[in-house]
Amino acid sequence: MNAIGVDVGGTKIAAGVVSPEGDILNEVRYPSAGPQERLLSTIGRAVNEVKNGFEVGGTCLAVPGTVSTAENKIIKAPNLHAIEGVPLKDELEKRTGLSTTVENDANAAAWGEFRFGAGSEATHLIFITLGTGVGGGVVSHGLLLRGAQGAGGEMGHITIQATGPRCGCGNHGCLEALASGTAIARRAREVASEKPDSALGRLAVERTVLGEDVAELAREGDEAARSVLEETGRWLGIGLAGFVNVFNPEVIAIGGGAARAGDLILDAARHEVHLRAMSPGRDLVEIKEASLGAQSGILGAAALARDPSSGEYVLGT
Amino acid sequence: MNAIGVDVGGTKIAAGVVSPEGDILNEVRYPSAGPQERLLSTIGRAVNEVKNGFEVGGTCLAVPGTVSTAENKIIKAPNLHAIEGVPLKDELEKRTGLSTTVENDANAAAWGEFRFGAGSEATHLIFITLGTGVGGGVVSHGLLLRGAQGAGGEMGHITIQATGPRCGCGNHGCLEALASGTAIARRAREVASEKPDSALGRLAVERTVLGEDVAELAREGDEAARSVLEETGRWLGIGLAGFVNVFNPEVIAIGGGAARAGDLILDAARHEVHLRAMSPGRDLVEIKEASLGAQSGILGAAALARDPSSGEYVLGT
Repeated sequence: MNAIGVDVGGTKIAAGVVSPEGDILNEVRYPSAGPQERLLSTIGRAVNEVKNGFEVGGTCLAVPGTVSTAENKIIKAPNLHAIEGVPLKDELEKRTGLSTTVENDANAAAWGEFRFGAGSEATHLIFITLGTGVGGGVVSHGLLLRGAQGAGGEMGHITIQATGPRCGCGNHGCLEALASGTAIARRAREVASEKPDSALGRLAVERTVLGEDVAELAREGDEAARSVLEETGRWLGIGLAGFVNVFNPEVIAIGGGAARAGDLILDAARHEVHLRAMSPGRDLVEIKEASLGAQSGILGAAALARDPSSGEYVLGT
Repeated sequence: MNAIGVDVGGTKIAAGVVSPEGDILNEVRYPSAGPQERLLSTIGRAVNEVKNGFEVGGTCLAVPGTVSTAENKIIKAPNLHAIEGVPLKDELEKRTGLSTTVENDANAAAWGEFRFGAGSEATHLIFITLGTGVGGGVVSHGLLLRGAQGAGGEMGHITIQATGPRCGCGNHGCLEALASGTAIARRAREVASEKPDSALGRLAVERTVLGEDVAELAREGDEAARSVLEETGRWLGIGLAGFVNVFNPEVIAIGGGAARAGDLILDAARHEVHLRAMSPGRDLVEIKEASLGAQSGILGAAALARDPSSGEYVLGT
């Protein structure tokens, strides 16, 4: 049966009716601004509006935060404080009359890529999203790994260089601190000042260099910009090599804004995995771009709403 | 029904008949020396001898190597070359007439601790063994994580300090390179030469310092020896913090020879996990000594032989 997936982001709410085959039959978007009551009302309206006569079995909300099943609430949502502590399942069921579950957004996206995207042929998938931070999720033996409290899958927060730069989580040398979009921008500033005559260096004099600038300059052949992405890819690969040894996945799918740099980052990551991971896992794993883009959240959430066997973790029951 | 668990080690073979409750009803031991044919013959004899009239449903061999289901063989067994490439399932079924499966020894031990030991109350367990190397296994949502080829669970081979010392696997800065018994011995030599007047320093002049010497001197209050174990614990904790964020386990059980130092290592590890892992996972997880000791292999293997649903990975089918 169809299901509704809702991607609750820091700036927008996107709700879609999704078919069992992964087609989005209807979609609505709203800004996610406002205090708690207004936000809940907007999510409820998005669900009711997108439903629009479609027969629907349930809803799953993909939310940008650390969820805790044990405490039945969202523990932390640094980019959407308004949902912290809210019993989202109860609130949404009251407003929509639809059976509702809640999932961390990166876990939902991982499930989307597993069911309909880069991992649709796999049984074991790691999904990594390179954005402002580094998130992700794991599907192992066909099961979404949430852990005891639903707080698992924080793939950006493994230490890969204990003496490395401080991470937003408080730790030092996390994968996120070394391979996120934020790390790319920081590295770009450093390289720009070391190589003022490069295209990257010249741009940095004019204005703040963004992650997408680095990718564009690298594509145009600027060696300084390339070196920034390659170094990022090496750090990414150091983290991925550990995941290969621990999870022995068939596919590692890389999504998020910084992944748009594609092989400019991924080739260095693949090389590092080959150097650092063990056989036979390193020979099997395919490291590739995620294929669903921004729709992975809606698609994954809908698939989780539809398939309770993959959705044992239910916030608010 | 009873099952036979066989712990095939680098120096000895231990086979036990195990009841569904985890009691070892009969046990035999043989040395594991000799070339391939003799080794296979010894394992077969151990199984047939330990069976000794007990009703038994099947056998599982826990082997010290990287197993590959895809290629139907043991890819690498650095401590027992004689089993490399051998179709163990077929060979043992021929010799014993019992249905046989094969599992990596650390994965089997993890399953043993999950079913009968430190994790018997948990649904999500990480098992780490600190010996000459660092091994381990993961049980997540009650499922043993083997990965696509049965090569997963190599918990010692995540990078925690990319620029760190070379590891036996070829990588740099693995958890194994920084927290194994070998790392303890290396660190003890360094500290002994820095602090020649410590008990550790004085012992090092007389003879080669072993891991157990460090633990004993630390227990007697030697600050130099304590500092070696504390630093080892800190590196261990850096790795464990990542596992907490990725797996959100209830229990991390630490076994192996170096774990006999107990809280002299584990307190530092707990402190580091508290500093580096995120809530709510870091508040939930209990880091403690494994409870089955050397019997975890036999017990876990027997439980895997008994429960095919946890033993979907079968070498040689």
